[in-house]
Amino acid sequence: MSRIAYVNGQYLPHREASVHVEDRGYQFADGVYEVVTIVNGKMIDEEGHLDRLWRSLGELRMDAPMDREPMKFVMREVIRQNGIYNGIIYLQVTRGVAPRDHPFPKDVRPALVMTAKRLSMKKAAKTAEQGIAVITVPDIRWTRRDIKSVSLLPNVLAKQEAKDKDAYEAFQVDDDGMVTEGSSTNAWIVDQDGKIITRPLSNDILAGITRASLIAELEKRGLEIEFRSFSVDELHNAREVFLTSSTSYVLPVVKVDDHVIGNGQPGSISLDLREIYQEFMLAAE
Amino acid sequence: MSRIAYVNGQYLPHREASVHVEDRGYQFADGVYEVVTIVNGKMIDEEGHLDRLWRSLGELRMDAPMDREPMKFVMREVIRQNGIYNGIIYLQVTRGVAPRDHPFPKDVRPALVMTAKRLSMKKAAKTAEQGIAVITVPDIRWTRRDIKSVSLLPNVLAKQEAKDKDAYEAFQVDDDGMVTEGSSTNAWIVDQDGKIITRPLSNDILAGITRASLIAELEKRGLEIEFRSFSVDELHNAREVFLTSSTSYVLPVVKVDDHVIGNGQPGSISLDLREIYQEFMLAAE
Repeated sequence: MSRIAYVNGQYLPHREASVHVEDRGYQFADGVYEVVTIVNGKMIDEEGHLDRLWRSLGELRMDAPMDREPMKFVMREVIRQNGIYNGIIYLQVTRGVAPRDHPFPKDVRPALVMTAKRLSMKKAAKTAEQGIAVITVPDIRWTRRDIKSVSLLPNVLAKQEAKDKDAYEAFQVDDDGMVTEGSSTNAWIVDQDGKIITRPLSNDILAGITRASLIAELEKRGLEIEFRSFSVDELHNAREVFLTSSTSYVLPVVKVDDHVIGNGQPGSISLDLREIYQEFMLAAE
Repeated sequence: MSRIAYVNGQYLPHREASVHVEDRGYQFADGVYEVVTIVNGKMIDEEGHLDRLWRSLGELRMDAPMDREPMKFVMREVIRQNGIYNGIIYLQVTRGVAPRDHPFPKDVRPALVMTAKRLSMKKAAKTAEQGIAVITVPDIRWTRRDIKSVSLLPNVLAKQEAKDKDAYEAFQVDDDGMVTEGSSTNAWIVDQDGKIITRPLSNDILAGITRASLIAELEKRGLEIEFRSFSVDELHNAREVFLTSSTSYVLPVVKVDDHVIGNGQPGSISLDLREIYQEFMLAAE
């Protein structure tokens, strides 16, 4: 089955999916995006992702390229045409095509692109069983990290630095020495007392959808979460560390910089939370 | 004459100039650019712009899409095919097309796009005669502003805020209350003693090519420049204010926020410097 992409009203063979060089996404990073996971043919947290997409658009005073219901229809069509049972769908909205000039162009239709691809659940499970390594890097990004924009160059550099050091992810650290989040994930620790800790929402981090769903599942079970920033030192000396993202789910971290976390194996709480999140995904309708 | 764009080896009608949706410029702002002004058929500071382009590529560990001499050939060809006598040429290099994943892709050829357009010298002259208004906004950008990347969303938002307030440009202000630079220009003041002041180069600002050429012209004439940061208060109370950029040249500022600068007309030093810079441009070979 050859891949199909949706581009501004057309379903095209993936290799033909293109946008104009004066699309503002290309020249100004003037766009936003979402990645939605598909498990057993069902989208996980579709509504949460669309809520966030609309919020990002609003923060940038960008019009939606279409109403929400038609967008949901197109998403289903892209998933169907690509025959995705387990994988992801990627949506990107930009401010559209206009002669290059910084201010918002007038009377320009926003551009909408969607692509989809299969992902192996087995590979993800194996990564989680082993646990991953993360590094810490200074957070050099702009101050509006709550907007899920395609202005991702610093995230790219952070992730590449992780890869250079044989790590899976880079946790970014603010000027006060506190962890903000990973380059494409939210960061969590379990302290020596077993307390689950993650940074509260603000402009400093993205409001992760997986983060939110995990929080809801934990709250349902009466499990307590402490919402506060934590330092690199706390991270290095945590009992457990894990990260969350739409494509990583709940992923145990076994090494941070040169510090082995716990006994170097995924922690039991992290694995329990991963299990809880997977149950939540499997219950998706 | 219909416009022509260069896209990865092809000279195409502008409307057909497109890149793949998985070009990393589109999905990650993983690219850099330059804008070179053409006056009377000559490129201004071509070498300076290419030096900076290569520096930006190096900082991002991105390969050049071609050697410098062939690139200069393509630039001339784009200018010739578009019949540009006065205008600009825009060059963008991205890390190329690859399946979406944050780290640098392997064995991917960088993408090169060039477009060109005419600009009216008369309109620019009229703007300079009247002088322009600027506003100040917090500098919310990432910390590597020395890299001329397409990660320009904060610059777009700053310029739009200026436009909303009937201003031409927004000067960005760091956490210490010191002006960094405009959203697409460098900022200068002349203090009450007639001293010309601009911020020294660092990661906080882009090394403007027009800035550098103006500095060289002033130094040739034995005119002194003080390289230091200046505060919003100094800006508001300056004798003169002006900005520099490849497309604005030297542009007098007559109003900053609610403060009228001098008598509300372009200052004499600013106009002299504009004249000096224009002579430099007209002498280009």
